[in-house]
Amino acid sequence: MTIEQHLQQWQEQVAQLLEARLPQSASVPHTLHQAMRYGALNGGKRIRPILVFATGEALGATLHDLSSPALAVELIHCYSLVHDDLPAMDDDDLRRGKPTCHIQFNEATAILAGDALHTQAFQELSSFEFSPQAQPQQLEMIRVLAEASGSLGMGGGQAIDLESTQKVIDLPMLENMHRMKTGALIKASVLLGALSAGPLKEEERQALVDYADAIGLAFQVKDDILDIESDTETLGKPQGSDLEKEKNTYPALLGIEGSCQKLDDLLQLALQALAQLPYNTQLLADLAEFIVHRKS
Amino acid sequence: MTIEQHLQQWQEQVAQLLEARLPQSASVPHTLHQAMRYGALNGGKRIRPILVFATGEALGATLHDLSSPALAVELIHCYSLVHDDLPAMDDDDLRRGKPTCHIQFNEATAILAGDALHTQAFQELSSFEFSPQAQPQQLEMIRVLAEASGSLGMGGGQAIDLESTQKVIDLPMLENMHRMKTGALIKASVLLGALSAGPLKEEERQALVDYADAIGLAFQVKDDILDIESDTETLGKPQGSDLEKEKNTYPALLGIEGSCQKLDDLLQLALQALAQLPYNTQLLADLAEFIVHRKS
Repeated sequence: MTIEQHLQQWQEQVAQLLEARLPQSASVPHTLHQAMRYGALNGGKRIRPILVFATGEALGATLHDLSSPALAVELIHCYSLVHDDLPAMDDDDLRRGKPTCHIQFNEATAILAGDALHTQAFQELSSFEFSPQAQPQQLEMIRVLAEASGSLGMGGGQAIDLESTQKVIDLPMLENMHRMKTGALIKASVLLGALSAGPLKEEERQALVDYADAIGLAFQVKDDILDIESDTETLGKPQGSDLEKEKNTYPALLGIEGSCQKLDDLLQLALQALAQLPYNTQLLADLAEFIVHRKS
Repeated sequence: MTIEQHLQQWQEQVAQLLEARLPQSASVPHTLHQAMRYGALNGGKRIRPILVFATGEALGATLHDLSSPALAVELIHCYSLVHDDLPAMDDDDLRRGKPTCHIQFNEATAILAGDALHTQAFQELSSFEFSPQAQPQQLEMIRVLAEASGSLGMGGGQAIDLESTQKVIDLPMLENMHRMKTGALIKASVLLGALSAGPLKEEERQALVDYADAIGLAFQVKDDILDIESDTETLGKPQGSDLEKEKNTYPALLGIEGSCQKLDDLLQLALQALAQLPYNTQLLADLAEFIVHRKS
């Protein structure tokens, strides 16, 4: 199977899981549940749950056990997108070519839908019946997810991003912001996949964290390059929107060529980290290549 | 000690816990952390953590173990207030006589601060080192808190409240809304306090849920009565604001006299539920009386 076929299979799996475990629109409160489903069932790339599956499978976790952390990380990601798109935040009308949640419904509903997706991530992880292989790490999974999502992780990164828009920041500040805003949850995805297979040895944890750190930054560098080089239709959002919003980006600091070099360096770091692990990590390596070479 | 003295002592304890465990303003991102602290350290009544303490102490939990669930329920409550006050939601400028979070900071910061308080509740419960008495129930506590907070609990109740404003609803619909919007988290507070003492027998759980259900509704009936009968200064928010916003209230459906009768019925139900429990529940009874007789 090619990596593209693997990705498609995993994406379908995530869509099925979300479809089954999100509250049904027919249950009260209808509008809130519709908005939750709208915010989550939007054909996203599902990079985070895919990292849960790919890491977990490499380390020997079962699909049953991986379904819960995969859902949980995606629910956190979806909640953050619904809130980030709000008028008071990034004020985006389109996401993946469709109206954003507050445009489709209204602002109050989008705020509440984001909140409810946020809660459901923790409900999912705390109520799931893991097998005896994963269950001893269940609390640690919740802890890892919470730390990655909070004010010292994703939430804090979004706050720094908003504060630094229209200000000039340097490369270490930019990287710190991305490590929090997207890197923290990507790291959590890799760790949750691994923890579903069993307790983690310290050196394995470190190699996985190094891998996740490199692909997390690479994902962002690539996003910034695509925002300049791709077109609106391929992106599903207006091309050049970072520039227009005076967002800090890698190309703005390093140029396009410097950014492409950076991307390649990060890929090498990711592959070196994988080489430390005593498992078949081919899929994780393919994923890193995919992140670096994707077209949208 | 009178119940008022107990309440004051618990309120100080909650303030100290929040002070110590909320991220410090000096740590990055400063503004987000300032806003989180502003949204939580606001001199609230702290009814929910007080219920954790009162229930836990009645059932023999330690103060150490109770501190974590007490914090967690209050963090969830504070996040919900910060979001409920937003312009797209209740659009309130004042809370307890002070500017609301989005007025003091800005809307984006208030959204993110609410989100970060939300996450911190789960971080607190999942990372706390409970004693061997409470630890076996740690996962269940997280599950109870998540269920109470999500789209079938507090979050869903808020959605129904927003949808039903300016519409006429009947008493069962009003009660269902309140059971979700405020009742669910009050119930969770009582259960978290109890679970900190040890595993719960089914009949004890039922009596505690009945008690919590009655005081949860009583709290709301009393709030509605106070909104009409009290003055702005005592309330810390504009008197008559429910009426102005065409909110559905008990006095609107039952009249003032009917609402006072309802309040008394609920108090009796709460006391009957406590009588089923083989513990000294005097403080829980005093709390029920306090909720029904408070002046603000």
